[in-house]
Parts: sequence; C-alpha cells; structure tokens
Amino acid sequence: MFESAEIGHAIDKKTYEAELPALRQALLEVQYQLREQANFPVIILINGIEGAGKGDTVKRLTEWMDPRLIQVSTFDLQTDEELARPPAWRYWRQLPAKGRTGIFFGNWYSQMLQARVKDKIDDAQLDQAIESSQRLERMLCDEGALIFKFWFHLSREQMEARLKSLADDPLHSWKLSPLDWQQSKTYDQVVQHAEHIIRRSSRDYAPWYVVESSDRNYRNLTVGKILLQGLRAALEGARGPQPAPHAAPVAVNLGTRRLLESLDLGQALEKADYKAQLAREQARLSALLHDKRMRRHALVAVFEGNDAAGKGGAIRRVTEALDPREYRIIPIAAPSDEERAQPYLWRFWRHIPPRGQFTIFDRSWYGRVLVERIEGFCSQADWLRAYGEINDFEESLVEHGVVLVKFWLAIDKDTQYARFKEREATPFKRFKITEEDWRNREKWDQYLDAVEDMVDRTSTGLAPWTLVEANDKRFARVKVLRTINDALERAFARDR
Amino acid sequence: MFESAEIGHAIDKKTYEAELPALRQALLEVQYQLREQANFPVIILINGIEGAGKGDTVKRLTEWMDPRLIQVSTFDLQTDEELARPPAWRYWRQLPAKGRTGIFFGNWYSQMLQARVKDKIDDAQLDQAIESSQRLERMLCDEGALIFKFWFHLSREQMEARLKSLADDPLHSWKLSPLDWQQSKTYDQVVQHAEHIIRRSSRDYAPWYVVESSDRNYRNLTVGKILLQGLRAALEGARGPQPAPHAAPVAVNLGTRRLLESLDLGQALEKADYKAQLAREQARLSALLHDKRMRRHALVAVFEGNDAAGKGGAIRRVTEALDPREYRIIPIAAPSDEERAQPYLWRFWRHIPPRGQFTIFDRSWYGRVLVERIEGFCSQADWLRAYGEINDFEESLVEHGVVLVKFWLAIDKDTQYARFKEREATPFKRFKITEEDWRNREKWDQYLDAVEDMVDRTSTGLAPWTLVEANDKRFARVKVLRTINDALERAFARDR
Repeated sequence: MFESAEIGHAIDKKTYEAELPALRQALLEVQYQLREQANFPVIILINGIEGAGKGDTVKRLTEWMDPRLIQVSTFDLQTDEELARPPAWRYWRQLPAKGRTGIFFGNWYSQMLQARVKDKIDDAQLDQAIESSQRLERMLCDEGALIFKFWFHLSREQMEARLKSLADDPLHSWKLSPLDWQQSKTYDQVVQHAEHIIRRSSRDYAPWYVVESSDRNYRNLTVGKILLQGLRAALEGARGPQPAPHAAPVAVNLGTRRLLESLDLGQALEKADYKAQLAREQARLSALLHDKRMRRHALVAVFEGNDAAGKGGAIRRVTEALDPREYRIIPIAAPSDEERAQPYLWRFWRHIPPRGQFTIFDRSWYGRVLVERIEGFCSQADWLRAYGEINDFEESLVEHGVVLVKFWLAIDKDTQYARFKEREATPFKRFKITEEDWRNREKWDQYLDAVEDMVDRTSTGLAPWTLVEANDKRFARVKVLRTINDALERAFARDR
Repeated sequence: MFESAEIGHAIDKKTYEAELPALRQALLEVQYQLREQANFPVIILINGIEGAGKGDTVKRLTEWMDPRLIQVSTFDLQTDEELARPPAWRYWRQLPAKGRTGIFFGNWYSQMLQARVKDKIDDAQLDQAIESSQRLERMLCDEGALIFKFWFHLSREQMEARLKSLADDPLHSWKLSPLDWQQSKTYDQVVQHAEHIIRRSSRDYAPWYVVESSDRNYRNLTVGKILLQGLRAALEGARGPQPAPHAAPVAVNLGTRRLLESLDLGQALEKADYKAQLAREQARLSALLHDKRMRRHALVAVFEGNDAAGKGGAIRRVTEALDPREYRIIPIAAPSDEERAQPYLWRFWRHIPPRGQFTIFDRSWYGRVLVERIEGFCSQADWLRAYGEINDFEESLVEHGVVLVKFWLAIDKDTQYARFKEREATPFKRFKITEEDWRNREKWDQYLDAVEDMVDRTSTGLAPWTLVEANDKRFARVKVLRTINDALERAFARDR
C-alpha cells in the first residue's frame, strides 16, 4: 500500500519556488469562494509516521491560506469537560462551520492506531473503531462536509535517517519526543495497522491520500495541490443540484517518479548461476509442497505482467519439477456465458483450491483494474470498487490459510519491442504475437498508471505484490520461484 | 425494533383466499420477466425466530412461483469440500445466476447470530462479521443482485405458545428439534443480538424486512407482497440506464394493525392514587439523582408526543421535586443560524450533559423523522439516513454511561380535539394553541406512520422508546416518572 510512497519523490528548490506563488494564489481564491458560498465545511485529518513533517506542512498551509478561516485542533489528552462526556463530543465541539476549514491532529485514526499498537485493543476492536469512524464520516459527508484524510509516509530507512539527523542537530533535537524514539521500535506495527486502517476506511466520499514525506518540498506541494484540486471539484459540485464533494479517489502522484520506473531492470543472472539456483529452488518447491504442513494451506500464485514479459516461461519453470497432479493452471481470458451471469469474482472463486493444493492463475482477477479499466470494458465505478473487493477476497483466502503470491513481471519498452520482433521472426513463436499486442503497447503509459494504482491499493501485508525485474528472464524465473518458496516457508513457520 | 411486529397482525382466511390468486399471478409474471431480462439475480435471505414458520413460507413461495427458477439452499454443517476452502466459498458456489432466484436458509446472519448467542464470538467479533457480510452484500448489489433479508419474528409469548401447541400435537411434535427448546431459554439473547445485527446491516441497497409471523396468513401474504413490490421496482429500474435495485427501505405494514392503535389509552389513575404515586416517584427520583452512583452516569430524557398530549405538564412533574441547578430543559424549536451551519446532530451534541447531570429535551433530534419528514423540511434521503445516525448517536451516549429515556406521549384524536377546544376557551392557555396545531392535526395519519417507523427503527435494547398512554394526564405523568426511575435503578444495578 505504501509502495509508491517509498521511492524517493522529491522536488528541487527551483521547481518548488517556481510553482508556489500560483498555488498559494489559487488556494486563497478557493478559500474565499468557500467562505462566500458557505455551503459546506472542510475537515482535514492529519495522520502519519512520527517525524514525517505533519506539523511543518500544516504550518505552511496556514501561511499560504487565510488563517482566520482555518482552525487547527489537536486531540491529545482529554480535558475534564471532555472526559465527562462521550468520546465523540470533543470532535463535535471542534467541527468547522460551513464555509470554514478544520484541521484535526490526533484525530480518531491516531487514537485507534495508538491503541492498537500499544495492544490496548485487539484486531476486532480496531475494526469496530474503524467502522464507527466510517459511520461518523459518512454522516458528516451526507451533511455536506468535504473530508481529506492524509497519511504522511516515511519508509523505515527515511524515518531512521530523519531521527538521526534531528538528534545530531543541537538546534532541532528538542523537536524529538520520547514518542519518536519509541516509534522507531514499533515502526513495523504502526505501518501494518495503518495499512489496515487506511484500506478499510478509504471510501469514495472520504478518501485517503498517502504522501511520501521525506522531501519537504514534495510533501508540502503535494498536500497543497490535493487540497486545491479537491476544493475546486467540491465548489464546482456544490453549485449543482446536489452537493457531490469528492471525486472518486485515485492515487496521488505528482509525477516526479514512477513506481515501475524505480525498479532496477538491469539485474541479471549468468547461465551457470541460473542453472544452479533454478535447480535448487525447484527442489525446494517440490519439498515444500510435499511437507505435511502443506495440509493446512493451499498455494495460489497470480501472474500478471507486461506482454512478452515472460509469464509463460516463468510458470513453466515453476511447474517443471512438479507432478502434473500437484498443480492446476487457470488461464484467464474472456469470461464464459455462465461466468458473465455471475458477479465478477465468481469465476475466480470457483477455482480456489482446497487445502493442500496449488493453483496458478495466468492472468487473474486483476484484469478488472488493468485491461478492463484501460479498454473501458467496465465503468470507472466498477474498477474503482474492485480494489476493495479484491482486498476483501484475498483477505478471506489468506485468513483461511491460503498462501497467496502475486507477481508483476516488468520489462522496459525496448525489451518488449525486441521480444515482439523476435516473436514475429521465429515461426514457432509467431502465434504469440498479435495485432492486439501492438495496440496494447501503445497504451504503455496507461498501464504504468494502472499498475501503480493496483500495487498501491492491493499490495497489503496479507497479500503483497512482488514486482519482478524481468528484462533478464533468468533473473525473473529464479526470483519468482524463490518468492513462492519463501512465502511457503514463512507460512509454515507461522503455524508453530 | 420489533415493536410493530409484536402487536398481533393477522389476516383472516377469507381475506387471504381472496387476495392470493392475484398475488400468485403477479409473482409468476415478475418471475418470468426476470428470466426474460436476465440482468440481475435475486437473493433471499431467510432468518428469524425458530418456529416462526420460515420453512412454511418458503414452501409456499416455491408453490406460488415457478420452482425451476428458484434454488433453495441451506447452509448447515459444512461439507468436506467446503471445509477445505475459505468459508465464503460455499455461498459463492450457490449464487443464483442472473434471471434466477436463490433462497438462502442458514446464511451468514444465522451463522453469526448462533455463534454470538453461544458465546463463541464476542461483541467486537460479531461487528466484524456484520461488516464483512456488508462488504459481500455491497459487492453483490454493485454487481446487480437484488437482495431481500427477512426476519420472521415472534414475541416470546407467541414463540412459547407455538412451541407448546406443537408439542401437544402428536402429528406435529416431530417438527420440534432440541434447538427449538433451547431457543426458548435463549430467546432474550437471540432477540438482543438479532436487533443489533439487523440495525447494523439494514442498508438502502439490502434492507431488512421484519415480519410478524404468528399468523400464517399474514406472514405468507406479507412476504409475497414484499417480494412482488421489490421485484417490480427492480425490473422497472433495470430497464433504465443504471440498474437501481431496491427502493429505500420503509417499514412494512400491510395495514391490518397499527402500533399506536394497539395502545390501551383507557388506562387512568384516580386522583388520590395519583397524588400518592406521584409523590413517591418524585421522592425516588430526587434520591436517585443524589445517589453517589449517579456520578458515573448522566440522565437524558427525551419528550415527544402528539400536540396537546401533555409534554409540558409531564416535564413539570419530573422537575417539580428537583433543585433547578440539578437539571436543564432544552426546548427544541427552529435551529439558529449557527446551528444551521453545522451537521444536523450538532445542536443536540452541544447540550449533552456531563456525568452526574440531567438534561430534558422538550422535543429532540427526532424532529428529523417526524415534523421534518412530514413537512418536507428535509429530503427523503435525509430522514431515511437519520434513523441510523440517531441510533449511532444514542449508542455513543449509552456506551458512555448516559441513561437515555425516550417518551412518546400518545393521545387519541378525540382527546386532542377536546384539549384544543379547551385551550381556545381558556384565556391563559390560549397561547398554547395556534393555527399550526390545527394544520398538524390534519396530518394525523402521516404522524401515525412516522411514529411507527420511528419506533421500529430507533427503539433499541440500548435506548428503547416508552410509549405513554396519555389520554389520562395523571396516568401519563406517573408512568413517565416511574420509567425514568426504573431506568436509573437498572443502570445503577448494572454498575455492580
């Protein structure tokens, strides 16, 4: 979920200073328009990794905009008056009126996240807290409120670097609280539970925006632009017959860097290394599938990737050392009539293996958010809701013990071109290349977007994506096998 | 929530037999139309009190309609194949295709209800199960499915009578399973958790229908009519650009009996009895409010009722024996400008008392689903969503220790007329009667509907409504005071 917020987005000072004046002017304008129309309030929820610069960004916002129309509230310790009343009372009393903006630090999400990380509540209680907050937000939105939910993200390395540089700096070390140091220890838990919270509470009426925060310019500019865009859309919508605050959520990326472009596609394996490693991993897979602990699990491997990225070859290397009775390969093409008469996920549910079995999906349910999105085979509403449906689907698999591995085989455009050409030139490969492949190639950038959205929205702790650098087929095949084996071993280890 | 399903709805044989042929014909017609259009499936979830006749009704449905297009599934013990896969798999494999109908006995709701009643899961886990089922239903509906959720209801007395009559009848006693007798013991828990489940999972896209089931004719006819109405609306909607399956849920009442009309308004108190009882209850209230256990609670009393039902007089009797510093009365009229700039519930949240305090609302948040609904001051969507919002609001009060009592003071139309006339004739009462009161009176039947909906949807285990028979003011005042005192005592008792 945080994949594309850990790839080093940054904006240099010159670009920042060039873009800022127009952004500030535009933000002020929408702010006054909001006050003028006064038909909805704006609520901004600030959350994220400690030390990610939340305070700095909010400070900027109040400088860029008219601070008289913004109220910043923090919800740390409850006051006597608040303690004497139901917990929600403190939020109600700080709600901004129509035409105004409230920025909430330490809001309901921070409270539940802290409580979960400190084990004061369990998973089920966390889900209760999430659902209760969703009812609150749903109501606020139905009453017209425009809600922005920000997660300021740092990778573990970024966070540790930041803590260290602050600590080394005598002028700023006072900014560090014991809490910050503690978070360094609990980072993994924070991220794990935050991911769950964000996934469950990202709704079309109140979406989350995950902002990579290690670079201050990028962070501040991104938040400013998201607010501007959201406010403009809402002010526009509010003039219509029905106030329709938010546009559907789509991942935010100011385009400085792309997830797939951050891969090191130069990675390769020598033939001898390849042969040795392949043999080792194949033997390992065979042993793992025969392990008696496999009886408690099933294995599902999903293969997606660019055309000509080598899915078929990778799948063959996986099955090579196995008895054909040990696995099933489900190639996904257009749905049958019977499948069309059922909900989208039905045709995948029917192939879910029982315990002890291994199923390979050659293309999968992700078609919904890839080809169907890009070709317009389903509506935007359909593919947008598919992310959540897929997450729920995969969660129900994993909770039942299914080991789920998902591969995106990535190649660059030149490699694809060379492989297409080679296929056309080789008689027995010619069937593998069609007009459609060339047409898809023209949509390369749309696929970049779709894959980035897909990974951000469906790579979860329970069912992570593995991006496979596949310019070198050997490297890719070994990585695929090793990933499957590692996943099985981790699952077996957790059984104990 | 089950109030209007416990008042003895019944349909005599003659009426039943007169209505049935047309209903059967109409049901068959929509069924064939559904097969013809084949653009959505129908899923009927059957739940309710054991012995309420669920099986009998489903049998009737398959007789009335074409059974080849209906598949009835029960989900009791899982098969080996099902056990080897995630729990949802068994539902997916039984999903009806577009154009067909699936009737699910023992579905996800029965599973979670059983598990909760048997204490295999706790409240938080029940909420998880509910939310997970909502995501499933949301997805099914987004994919076009039309979902009906039925709760076949019996009051405890009705259930016990039914069990007894079955047991006494040698021809039918085999129908009784040990489960039935067990439910007699667990009735209160079943109803309590069922209410919670129904409240949390009643959505506009998949509403619940609570059907009083002690009379077989009423039960079967009601279910048939609900299906007919829902199917017709969906078939109509599906012809439009966007399939819009369900109309918003409104309480189902075939009009044989009304909740408010089932009250015994003849109840009255002699003057001497009244004085004695009033003094006793007032003393009790004063003592309870000074009890040190009150420090953990707050008291909120809500007064609603027909015009001239005696709200003001009842409130005065409540406060008479108290020091003015001990309570606050919040009269609710039109909202202020400041209140209008906030979400609807804001103006009530601001008056929620801290622990130890007592607040009386003379009219309340229920204005939304009464006067605002009837006068069209808000949209239908607004007042429909208000039921859930109010339930959430009240839940957050009660969970914090607020003792919440809600009164509907009910008088009959003749009594109101007499009181209006008396007010007009008495100089110092004349200010109490306006043109508006006479206009409201013309909407008597609309208020009957609105109050019945309100009680059905917002009378919960946590915050039940008390219907007060108020033709006799003395009887009403004593009942109000006694109800408050009993509620306080129950809350204090639970603290231990």
